Amino acid sequence: MLVTQSGNLGTQLLAFAEKEGIGIRAFAGSGNEAMITIEDAMEGFEVDELTQTVVLYIESIKNGRRFFEAAKRVGKKKPVIALKGGRTEAGAHAAASHTGAMASNVKVFNAACSQSGIILVENPMDLLDLSAAFSSLPLPKGKKVGIATLGGGWGVVASDLCMENGLEVPPLSEKVIDNINKVLPPFWSHANPVDIVGEMNPEIYMTVLEELLMWPECDALIHMGIIGRRIMIQAVMESTIVLDKNYDQKFMEDSLTYLDAYETQFIEKTARLMEKYNKPIIGVYLLNDNKTRTITEAEGCKYKGVNFITPERAVKALAKMYQYTQWLKG
Amino acid sequence: MLVTQSGNLGTQLLAFAEKEGIGIRAFAGSGNEAMITIEDAMEGFEVDELTQTVVLYIESIKNGRRFFEAAKRVGKKKPVIALKGGRTEAGAHAAASHTGAMASNVKVFNAACSQSGIILVENPMDLLDLSAAFSSLPLPKGKKVGIATLGGGWGVVASDLCMENGLEVPPLSEKVIDNINKVLPPFWSHANPVDIVGEMNPEIYMTVLEELLMWPECDALIHMGIIGRRIMIQAVMESTIVLDKNYDQKFMEDSLTYLDAYETQFIEKTARLMEKYNKPIIGVYLLNDNKTRTITEAEGCKYKGVNFITPERAVKALAKMYQYTQWLKG
Repeated sequence: MLVTQSGNLGTQLLAFAEKEGIGIRAFAGSGNEAMITIEDAMEGFEVDELTQTVVLYIESIKNGRRFFEAAKRVGKKKPVIALKGGRTEAGAHAAASHTGAMASNVKVFNAACSQSGIILVENPMDLLDLSAAFSSLPLPKGKKVGIATLGGGWGVVASDLCMENGLEVPPLSEKVIDNINKVLPPFWSHANPVDIVGEMNPEIYMTVLEELLMWPECDALIHMGIIGRRIMIQAVMESTIVLDKNYDQKFMEDSLTYLDAYETQFIEKTARLMEKYNKPIIGVYLLNDNKTRTITEAEGCKYKGVNFITPERAVKALAKMYQYTQWLKG
Repeated sequence: MLVTQSGNLGTQLLAFAEKEGIGIRAFAGSGNEAMITIEDAMEGFEVDELTQTVVLYIESIKNGRRFFEAAKRVGKKKPVIALKGGRTEAGAHAAASHTGAMASNVKVFNAACSQSGIILVENPMDLLDLSAAFSSLPLPKGKKVGIATLGGGWGVVASDLCMENGLEVPPLSEKVIDNINKVLPPFWSHANPVDIVGEMNPEIYMTVLEELLMWPECDALIHMGIIGRRIMIQAVMESTIVLDKNYDQKFMEDSLTYLDAYETQFIEKTARLMEKYNKPIIGVYLLNDNKTRTITEAEGCKYKGVNFITPERAVKALAKMYQYTQWLKG
């Protein structure tokens, strides 16, 4: 459920959500809230079973006590995610001329959100990323992330981002190293992140992922570069055809059809693995085109595939999910 | 010029750059730098007139003194933008197993970058955004941002982000308010951000932009929602046709052709305005599809149109450009 005190911002988010396969149960543009407020909408959808997350763009709140009490109650059932407009002096000025919002003390607001379990974000698009993650994945039980990557540099970047966002990247156990030794060539990283070093046999990717999920030190999994490869390979093949007119066109088409099916199946398999191990998995596309989606449904599966186009979005989503887990634990 | 100590990360950035219309003069994957280093590449391209920015992904530096001295010298001619992998303990571990990078003291590294004018970023995609902005726009002389928006909420969000990134959103002068009063209906925001409140006459957008550019308190301009509207309107029209089979198909096609041409011309005009006023302009698309690009060239024009799909990317780019301006001033 999405409520925004800005019709424009809400409409844009709805269009992006549609493009990314992110379902929105209901949308309300609450504007200056002369009659119906965010509190009304939130309480209304509290009991709605089809509403999995509550997503808000707030400029000001009419009844603070009612809002935070409702958020705390709703938050025990489903996450409440909010972007606050008017955090700064310039933003508050703009909000005053937009919805007539009164400036509020940001520190007090943030503290009240923290107590009520409201997950705050900084950017409009974060609202959608978190909505996708929370409504598609199991919650991480802890902050330890296993990382599998097709490129070493990406593993470094993701590790830095995990630590900077309050997550951990624990060292692999001997047992996991032994098991992965059986499938990867000897020059793999022997560490978390697991660098799959350009291994071309796609069966092995899934084996590596499952080894990490079975590992008790892994609360959540990020994989990078395994999907979205078809776009890179397509570009390479198309360049080859330009240079070599005799290149086997059918081979190219068959390869791309195969890769496309492989990637869809791969995402569906990750959804099933989440059900088996009850741990979240987020993927990062190597490249994207008009066919790539944040959300991919897996038939008959409780969870959905969630894949972003950058590591920072994957890490941020996991970090906010962990924050919510912590709040639920009280 | 792009040098990365990760082939995978570099290849991905190249593919994104191609998609976004961002030119890359040369690319080197310098790997573990057993022979040729980032310093070699940077010094080699220092004198290359076609290289406008130097973009680096660094895990470790062989010769620190040589690197920072070269960066300082090169930086006076063209910006040096860098992402450092291994900022955290987990990242440094991953880097050690990737390129054999030695862990370095992050505070010392950051301080040396600050002194040498190197612009640091946190995420791989930031490298491309800054490369696009620096090589297409004039530098802002100060930190005061004029904002024009087709949606009030977006103006609030952008104002907050500006202040949080060290920029300012100054109040409008009486003169600017008087001038905009002549073209917008009485219920416009009368403030910066200028909320164009759904005004449908597209000529007026350009008038508002030019008013802000002429204003001495405006060092840089962000406009939001003016371009990318064609995608929203197309969706609305397509929905209408589903419901009303008698809807005028030709009217729809003509409208979309008109809007498409309008948006291209609009971006070209902003490029010319940048030449006239020597101030950077960054746009934010309302929505994107496979036709939207970060960079749009304007024939015979020194500068290029730069448009992102989120306000945070526009603000971050401006903030880093302002940081570079400050360093150049010494």
